[in-house]
Amino acid sequence: MPLPVSPLAPEEIPKLPPIAGCRLSAVDSGLRRSDGVDLLLIAFEEGTQVAGVFTKSKTAAAPILRSKQHLSGGHARGLVVNSGNANAFTGQMGEMAVTQTLTHAAQLLECEPEECFAASTGVIGEPLAYEKIIAALPKAHDTLSHHGWEDAAKAICTTDTFIKMATRSFEIGSETVTLNGIAKGSGMIAPDMATMLGYIATDAAIEAEDLQSMLSRGTNYSFNAITVDSDTSTSDMVLCFATGQGAKLKGESLTQFEKELHSLMLELAQLIVRDGEGASKFFSVNVSGATSCQDAKIVAMAIANSPLVKTAIAGEDANWGRVVMAVGKSGAAANRDSLEISFGEHLLTQNGQRHPDYDEAVISNYMKQQNLDIHVDLGLGEGQFSAYSCDFTHGYISINADYRT
Amino acid sequence: MPLPVSPLAPEEIPKLPPIAGCRLSAVDSGLRRSDGVDLLLIAFEEGTQVAGVFTKSKTAAAPILRSKQHLSGGHARGLVVNSGNANAFTGQMGEMAVTQTLTHAAQLLECEPEECFAASTGVIGEPLAYEKIIAALPKAHDTLSHHGWEDAAKAICTTDTFIKMATRSFEIGSETVTLNGIAKGSGMIAPDMATMLGYIATDAAIEAEDLQSMLSRGTNYSFNAITVDSDTSTSDMVLCFATGQGAKLKGESLTQFEKELHSLMLELAQLIVRDGEGASKFFSVNVSGATSCQDAKIVAMAIANSPLVKTAIAGEDANWGRVVMAVGKSGAAANRDSLEISFGEHLLTQNGQRHPDYDEAVISNYMKQQNLDIHVDLGLGEGQFSAYSCDFTHGYISINADYRT
Repeated sequence: MPLPVSPLAPEEIPKLPPIAGCRLSAVDSGLRRSDGVDLLLIAFEEGTQVAGVFTKSKTAAAPILRSKQHLSGGHARGLVVNSGNANAFTGQMGEMAVTQTLTHAAQLLECEPEECFAASTGVIGEPLAYEKIIAALPKAHDTLSHHGWEDAAKAICTTDTFIKMATRSFEIGSETVTLNGIAKGSGMIAPDMATMLGYIATDAAIEAEDLQSMLSRGTNYSFNAITVDSDTSTSDMVLCFATGQGAKLKGESLTQFEKELHSLMLELAQLIVRDGEGASKFFSVNVSGATSCQDAKIVAMAIANSPLVKTAIAGEDANWGRVVMAVGKSGAAANRDSLEISFGEHLLTQNGQRHPDYDEAVISNYMKQQNLDIHVDLGLGEGQFSAYSCDFTHGYISINADYRT
Repeated sequence: MPLPVSPLAPEEIPKLPPIAGCRLSAVDSGLRRSDGVDLLLIAFEEGTQVAGVFTKSKTAAAPILRSKQHLSGGHARGLVVNSGNANAFTGQMGEMAVTQTLTHAAQLLECEPEECFAASTGVIGEPLAYEKIIAALPKAHDTLSHHGWEDAAKAICTTDTFIKMATRSFEIGSETVTLNGIAKGSGMIAPDMATMLGYIATDAAIEAEDLQSMLSRGTNYSFNAITVDSDTSTSDMVLCFATGQGAKLKGESLTQFEKELHSLMLELAQLIVRDGEGASKFFSVNVSGATSCQDAKIVAMAIANSPLVKTAIAGEDANWGRVVMAVGKSGAAANRDSLEISFGEHLLTQNGQRHPDYDEAVISNYMKQQNLDIHVDLGLGEGQFSAYSCDFTHGYISINADYRT
């Protein structure tokens, strides 16, 4: 039975234009129990540069370990992603599954296996039936198209209730640059990772080293600034490809590109939160006045991850005392008397206690909104950070108390 | 409407014997909305030694800060605890409330305010109506009794569904030593704290310094080894009093006492987990083979806190892949191929993959038990740690999505 679409889903899903040098296809390999496409193949033209960020999990999945190795080359010709099985904690058989998959993909794409990347998403610990992938790859190769973005976004979904795509088109000098991205993720979403599968491509020509710097910087404020349930996956991966078919970007011309890239990454990351398992409300936690940006992130994440804050938001309860609790437990430097907490435009605390103008009726009314902003000013320094989260509802329990059975 | 009693509540609540030098009373001051006692007063004979551990929260409540100061004296004559309001994030008014409460208590007990301790539990951020406490203290003083333990345990409850008491009686040399403890806590229960209110008393004569060492060592393996929801309270406190009316314990005779003390602390701590908000199952996470005990604790707590592990247990789903995930995200040293996971007596993994004899039906049957054991052997060193947690159910969401309104 498919899950109902998240109430936080965007009203419109953008159409993604073609990216020169990047062709995609999605087929049904039979790996995922539900109907529909479950295998994504992307083919890149020669000369494509690649950057990537991966989960920091100590039990990372086999395709993560292999893709990390292949990233050192800095160039890419192919990407194979399956859903329905994470190929995680599958021992040497799991490693063999990646080798077989990439060897077959490389043959079809007429390149080296080391120029191909793999990812898998789904259940942990079950052997991957990679023979199904190998059997489906020729058909995927035959149907590669510049217009395959929507099917690609579908093929990587698991418990997602809507597909996640974003695009940017902008002028740099006299040339138009196009930037597309897709992502998936709904549960097992947590900080200090590179979220559960995101793929970004541009037609611009950018050196892998530059691409990597921009991707890593952006990850901190986008994919690593979101949380659904504080649980970090074994399989998180974001790859960014530059096919080099369009504008050649170097030095200062990269600044504008980076701004667009980060904006697209944040859009994709927020889409994942908006599809958080069981979510009925989206909220951002904006922390300022911390002694460092690192401390600001620690505080923002402590609030964004707190089950008590997240259940209060589900209940439309202006329980700002739980925000105080989360600030206190975070371990970051904090001072009761300089701490200012606001919900939306409403300042709730001052001088270490409830604000004299506090009006429960006004704040309770604010909590009925679907998108909420929590602001915390620690009043200590210049550090700031914004995190993005969703509420914690009966839906999360229902989905996760019997996902596997 | 009172919450139904936790299905994990113990079948019998022990009777607590009197402790020489320790009299208690509980009265209804009108601070808590529900009927029943909400104010606890304990009076100790002159010469009582005291030790304490407190929340590490950076937004600790006013009574925590004051009690910490008073602990430096090492002796105690009185303790005042109210439920219904945490007196946390209440600014200078909150500090004044503690001063007024302890000044009035000290007058009644004919001692100094610095020999008295205070604690408050309940909603954060609302001004404490301390005049209700002051008005109720004389009645509490008039009804002090050596037999007041059960009412004392009742007075400190908030969302608790049963009262938490434990007792030990043992011979040291030719003398009988008695040790009583009460605790409360159900939500906002997390590691690295000293849980939400625990009070322990013995008739033995023990120097404050020795008492403090034993209490601190025991806390690490009891109150700091439990979690309900990973949220650390502003008000956690455990105090241990030795009235000195009985056996004089020093040097080696303390070893036996410490063993009994730690056993009692673990019993109280586990009772809190058994009253975890919405809990239907209790589980222990036993980690061995870590490179250090600290790493073992990090792994055990990552598993015990994981929303995905906790919802899987609620759903009786043997989803050991989520245990792999939690090991990986913990940040502790781990190696896929040496990691062995067992549920109860059933070994599930070997050589970095599912065990060849894995039998889903057998494990699914095991998951139906009310008390579960997860064992994780990292296969790297000698470090070990056990943590205690409960499952994550619809009940937790229901309780916390509208606790305050």
